[in-house]
Amino acid sequence: MNIDMNTRARPADPTPCVIESRVKGVRLHMMREVRDARGDLCAAEVGRDVPFLVRRSFMIYNVPSAETRGEHAHRVCAQFLMAVRGSVRVLADDGSQREEFCLDRPNLGLYLPPMIWGIQHGYSHDGVLLALASDLYDPADYIRDYAQFLAAVRAGKDAA
Amino acid sequence: MNIDMNTRARPADPTPCVIESRVKGVRLHMMREVRDARGDLCAAEVGRDVPFLVRRSFMIYNVPSAETRGEHAHRVCAQFLMAVRGSVRVLADDGSQREEFCLDRPNLGLYLPPMIWGIQHGYSHDGVLLALASDLYDPADYIRDYAQFLAAVRAGKDAA
Repeated sequence: MNIDMNTRARPADPTPCVIESRVKGVRLHMMREVRDARGDLCAAEVGRDVPFLVRRSFMIYNVPSAETRGEHAHRVCAQFLMAVRGSVRVLADDGSQREEFCLDRPNLGLYLPPMIWGIQHGYSHDGVLLALASDLYDPADYIRDYAQFLAAVRAGKDAA
Repeated sequence: MNIDMNTRARPADPTPCVIESRVKGVRLHMMREVRDARGDLCAAEVGRDVPFLVRRSFMIYNVPSAETRGEHAHRVCAQFLMAVRGSVRVLADDGSQREEFCLDRPNLGLYLPPMIWGIQHGYSHDGVLLALASDLYDPADYIRDYAQFLAAVRAGKDAA
């Protein structure tokens, strides 16, 4: 899935919509954007766009475009990602399916449930990624090795 | 209070701190920023920086620099404001004291409790304001008339 239209070319106030991806539980939200002469506004609301109460927000910026960030999964923490400025590419992988998303406007939000391997790359020079997270920072929640991630996915399937 | 240092000139990873303002309950948070060759990260955590569970986030951008936004108070909703890109000035007013804050870096967060009159102005051309809010959007929560705001402040004091 590669939504890469020119931001300025699109009509104002597009209809909000949600696009299911082929990666388990990963969804792309096009949120309502309200535009007028005083500036533009878009909102992400818990219960409508974000399926968790937000306990942490973090931003990533000043990322050289050749850099890759992420490269981990969370056991419990869910996240909702937005490129609040510029653009960034996000790869999501559930252990059997993977898909890449181009976040290139503030009103696109990517929901990543727990147990999704995520990679961010291709930051534009002005790119700012905002993540809303369901949980506070906990190093024990991270899986940083892909083989270990696959083993954990298999273990989860076997337990189900 | 006018923190207006050049972002590039400051030392990396400043010590997080909280500055109480003279406006009732309004606080400026300098959050920890983690910088390395792969880019910079800063986080706002509920319980540490943000004293409420976040139920809505919204962004304001593409604001002409001559424009003024805000000009209202919330009866119940609390907010935590950050300039995730560029800069914006925020005036906060509790009905008897007012103070202006310059949000000019991602790791500055301004906590606005309910019943504070807020105005944002002086957006830089690339300015993006991010607000984390304690409540979903509710038009009934807004006080948009300053005289009405002062009356509500007085009524609150009389009831206390």
